Amino acid sequence: MTTPLLESYAAGAWFRADDEGTPLLDAATGEEIARISSAGLDTAAMVDYARRVGGPAIRPLTFHERATTLKELALMLGQHKDEFYALSARTGATRRDSMVDIDGGIGTMFSYASKGKRELPNDVVYLDGAVERLGKGGTFLGQHVYMSRPGVAVQINAFNFPVWGMLEKLAPAFLAGLPTIVKPASQTAYLTEAVVRRIVGSGILPEGALQLISGGVGDLLAMLDAQDSVSFTGSAATADLLRRDPAVQERGVRLQVEADSLNASVLGTDVTASDPEFDLFVKGVVAEMTVKAGQKCTAIRRAIVPEAMADAVIAAISDRLSRMVVGDPTDEQVRMGALASLGQREEVRRAVATLRRSSDLVFGDPDSVEVVGADATAGAFLSPILLRAHDGAEEPHDVEPFGPVSTVITYRTVDEAIALTARGRGSLVASVVTHDPTFARDIVLGLAPWHGRVLVLDRDDAAESTGHGSPLPMLVHGGPGRAGGGEELGGIRGVLHHMQRTAVQASPDMMTAITGRWTAGSVRRVEDVHPFRKSLRDLRIGDSIVSAPRTVTLADIDHFADFTGDRFYAHTDPEAAARNPLFGGIVAHGYLVVSLAAGLFVDPDPGPVLANFGVDGLRFLTPVKADDTIRVTLTVKQITPRSSADYGEVRWDALVVNQDDEPVATYDVLTLVAKEWPPAE
Amino acid sequence: MTTPLLESYAAGAWFRADDEGTPLLDAATGEEIARISSAGLDTAAMVDYARRVGGPAIRPLTFHERATTLKELALMLGQHKDEFYALSARTGATRRDSMVDIDGGIGTMFSYASKGKRELPNDVVYLDGAVERLGKGGTFLGQHVYMSRPGVAVQINAFNFPVWGMLEKLAPAFLAGLPTIVKPASQTAYLTEAVVRRIVGSGILPEGALQLISGGVGDLLAMLDAQDSVSFTGSAATADLLRRDPAVQERGVRLQVEADSLNASVLGTDVTASDPEFDLFVKGVVAEMTVKAGQKCTAIRRAIVPEAMADAVIAAISDRLSRMVVGDPTDEQVRMGALASLGQREEVRRAVATLRRSSDLVFGDPDSVEVVGADATAGAFLSPILLRAHDGAEEPHDVEPFGPVSTVITYRTVDEAIALTARGRGSLVASVVTHDPTFARDIVLGLAPWHGRVLVLDRDDAAESTGHGSPLPMLVHGGPGRAGGGEELGGIRGVLHHMQRTAVQASPDMMTAITGRWTAGSVRRVEDVHPFRKSLRDLRIGDSIVSAPRTVTLADIDHFADFTGDRFYAHTDPEAAARNPLFGGIVAHGYLVVSLAAGLFVDPDPGPVLANFGVDGLRFLTPVKADDTIRVTLTVKQITPRSSADYGEVRWDALVVNQDDEPVATYDVLTLVAKEWPPAE
Repeated sequence: MTTPLLESYAAGAWFRADDEGTPLLDAATGEEIARISSAGLDTAAMVDYARRVGGPAIRPLTFHERATTLKELALMLGQHKDEFYALSARTGATRRDSMVDIDGGIGTMFSYASKGKRELPNDVVYLDGAVERLGKGGTFLGQHVYMSRPGVAVQINAFNFPVWGMLEKLAPAFLAGLPTIVKPASQTAYLTEAVVRRIVGSGILPEGALQLISGGVGDLLAMLDAQDSVSFTGSAATADLLRRDPAVQERGVRLQVEADSLNASVLGTDVTASDPEFDLFVKGVVAEMTVKAGQKCTAIRRAIVPEAMADAVIAAISDRLSRMVVGDPTDEQVRMGALASLGQREEVRRAVATLRRSSDLVFGDPDSVEVVGADATAGAFLSPILLRAHDGAEEPHDVEPFGPVSTVITYRTVDEAIALTARGRGSLVASVVTHDPTFARDIVLGLAPWHGRVLVLDRDDAAESTGHGSPLPMLVHGGPGRAGGGEELGGIRGVLHHMQRTAVQASPDMMTAITGRWTAGSVRRVEDVHPFRKSLRDLRIGDSIVSAPRTVTLADIDHFADFTGDRFYAHTDPEAAARNPLFGGIVAHGYLVVSLAAGLFVDPDPGPVLANFGVDGLRFLTPVKADDTIRVTLTVKQITPRSSADYGEVRWDALVVNQDDEPVATYDVLTLVAKEWPPAE
Repeated sequence: MTTPLLESYAAGAWFRADDEGTPLLDAATGEEIARISSAGLDTAAMVDYARRVGGPAIRPLTFHERATTLKELALMLGQHKDEFYALSARTGATRRDSMVDIDGGIGTMFSYASKGKRELPNDVVYLDGAVERLGKGGTFLGQHVYMSRPGVAVQINAFNFPVWGMLEKLAPAFLAGLPTIVKPASQTAYLTEAVVRRIVGSGILPEGALQLISGGVGDLLAMLDAQDSVSFTGSAATADLLRRDPAVQERGVRLQVEADSLNASVLGTDVTASDPEFDLFVKGVVAEMTVKAGQKCTAIRRAIVPEAMADAVIAAISDRLSRMVVGDPTDEQVRMGALASLGQREEVRRAVATLRRSSDLVFGDPDSVEVVGADATAGAFLSPILLRAHDGAEEPHDVEPFGPVSTVITYRTVDEAIALTARGRGSLVASVVTHDPTFARDIVLGLAPWHGRVLVLDRDDAAESTGHGSPLPMLVHGGPGRAGGGEELGGIRGVLHHMQRTAVQASPDMMTAITGRWTAGSVRRVEDVHPFRKSLRDLRIGDSIVSAPRTVTLADIDHFADFTGDRFYAHTDPEAAARNPLFGGIVAHGYLVVSLAAGLFVDPDPGPVLANFGVDGLRFLTPVKADDTIRVTLTVKQITPRSSADYGEVRWDALVVNQDDEPVATYDVLTLVAKEWPPAE
């Protein structure tokens, strides 16, 4: 019986290679599952299609519309999890391992959908930071904006996360407005292909937004230029080839690498064998050694412990490992499945042999393992292996055994723990298990420059902790130096990495026109109708009201103090207030000023404005003294329809001035405004 | 007479090379000014010194302390401007050119000093973004932090800005906590050396914070690793060598490149010859052709104009160029000095010859120029040269003549203007001269992905505009693709580029300990003394007050409506309020809630708390209805002493809850608090 040949999805159609392809084998049984080949695939046409069809279909969508699409996609994929789990088992993954990959990937899509709606505007331009006044007169401004690039996001993924690896890169790229071409590692590409078939079949993504290469990438890189990016997860050797490619060297393709990483977990000097942190440390090391059979870029390769604790740590880890059941990943009692391939196991054995030059084997046998429910000779099974490094050992900081292997290394002082960890030359993640805040601060500040993520684990966060090895969509994933020097995920940070940041310089009116957000100094449109009478659909950026004046009397201030109970001396005691270095006399409460301002700008009758849900950036600029007269100008600054409600958010610029036109207070008022008024029946 | 041999400042001492060095010539007279050599320089010792002495001296300083140092440095340099101006003239620079370099460089230091104090905390850790709740219980949090790297910032600069080039890179690197090693281009290194002598002599920078290489860098790169960075400004050819260096390829050195750039200025379709924008466009092109004799990475190489306007534009530019006086840069009537060297002029002539394959010469003669006050044969003088491209010309988008040369290119539609500009394959800056907001938005959104900066120039911002060619410290400088793909400056963005961003995961208490900022969920310390009675020195993160309760009555709401005039129906009209989809009945004004909260938490007597200067992030979470009872908890979140005042800023976390402990409102209260109380006499 011949197995299926995996296809590529290219330029709007499924493509079947011209040849027979290379067989892909079940990790646990050695059976052939599928074959793979991209022979004859026209990658130039794929890049062209992404640029010509995919990008132009995504970029007109607002961030919120893209987020909605991601959510639909995640919901759809959730309905096909059983299919994905069945294929995942063939990669050697237990059910728990598959959950990390499949549910983890879908969860990342949900997270980006949610972040996209909450933290990005309902627009295509993202504003970065505040407006900069570039001239004293305020006629010349600067504003950083992030814009979508008219390019393609290529992802080249590792074999260990065939689902998460694709989805965690797809979600931020799609939110950023980029079409994606995904190239999974061949070993486990059958699972990625199945997910892409579901995505394409659903019709949820715009055509051209996602293409798949099953097999080699051919001359894909030769098609890319400065508007394109390549996100790579895999070996340092392949990363090195990519870094040297003319696409990166000469044509400015953005390369994001997540490669080798000798992650460490450090046990604090404060922890004794009877502390809960001791167990947390031991459990963490064991989990990271055995989840995905240790085939995770984030796994703990180095367990760095106080010298005096080494024996106890080794005993406790060994005890847990001795109870670890290895075997058929579909068997419920099995806690660790197979490595992805026999070749992969050979690589790990070679790495262990190298590590043993300067470390003693303290648990496990690289050449023998007891296996449950599977044929130990056909599947890529390997025993968990724990080593203990000799003093001054080099290899544990340099050799990454990509399997269930970890090395215990001892330290004496916090500085030594930092220095040992830094010998990994840059890692994705370090964890620190301690209940001592001083130790935690010292070591985290020392480790941070070498890591993309640092986990501090103790009895307080353990129950909710997601663990050392789990990248989370809201936190950056990637590390400096040896780990590749890149960043992905991190919530909106991961979206912005795919966009171009540009400083725009313009007059206020031009800035308002370009950014779609009202900019101080640009035209205010004052009409007969109060803007509170306008529905979200009718409101326009720049719509304003200039209020009537109101004089703030000493009686008002006295009364407000009595009514609210805020009898702060600067509002109530003339002599003490006169001695205040900032006021030099009685001043109105800031809260009185904004309360009166609301009284001046509010239109009271029922209308489209439903509620004031907040205030941002309130600053009191000039004190209001008794008998000062204030006025407020309220201007529509930003309008954000909510896709899932019949109202949206309107951000108003509020400027309160005194009788001399000096600014007294500035702030943004946040309101919810109905899309239609009166509401449609 | 022998000229002086420029020295390097290395590992705490001035170093004189072992050999005679290479002569450096006056650009306008051809006289020898100095010689340069780094023969025998121990660059390994320099890197070691920066790591061992420089970094450890800077990193314990807070951002504010570093900012204060930058300000002192800028003030000191300002006192020696005459000396720098005299040397600058020898580079071929007119007084106006020198101002860009010298005053521009010093101004950048001032800007960073100011940004550092206003936008960075008085601490060594910078918090990036909000706390992320990673678990429902709130016991496991994430926070991104930026930390200083224990590395070295190497800058390799171009010849055209010997002062600005160094200072614009030094300021953000120093603020970021990094020691700098600067290597100026040899041609104009005598000016950089003079500035470094003043800096070293002043003793303002900590020892090891700045070292200088006069001459070649030798094997400097071989010493660098993942904690170090190289910022390069110069030719694409040298950038290519740096990108291929094992330091970057294999050891993770961060490389920031600012290289070739074929910047464009686009004249809008709306502009006629009688509009002020026409003159602005022409003046801009002429200025960018002639300031620094066109030797600026940001100069306008391509003038992209509507086809119908080409003749008028060429006539107007030519007219202005014909009145341009070229010659001795110290002569007051001279508007354009010499190129930096005869070799540089030869390069420009070669570029012009290449451009002429597809463009006609419409102004100037590459081989002849009338010179005032100087010897035309000895100095590197060149006429401004204007070309007009044939339809479909390739060379203007590909050849960068690094001198007073620009090419007029015509377009018909806005899409064509964008496409033509994009053919530069990524530039530092584009300018658009238009008074039409629709044209401005369309073209800016199209150009943004290809540029680090886009200037929109019109009659409204022209008077304050700093022009096409001026990078500003508060805006990013750098462009994608051919321009190098980097970013520098951009205010605090430029500082953060030098730091490592790390996601920290921890419990609230641990997060507070690590970040030095109170994190919601961590311990609140409630003591007998009200925190308003504590001076800045005595206050501690986490100090709290839990207020007494207060019931909000319907009478309170009625009264507040009458008193403030805020009679919004949700506060005053029970029937209309009942129909509000969010409230379903009368609710208290948000401003009433925060006013009453202040009445609950304020300690009224004179004390160290001087003023409330603002409120951040106020959100109303649960409506307060009549007869609800509220309480407020106020907690010290962040303490920021101001170095130049006897008070500092205290940010308080305010949480208002109702009788069911539901959060009603959250916000940050910003106060000024005296450092000592009672004040020292």
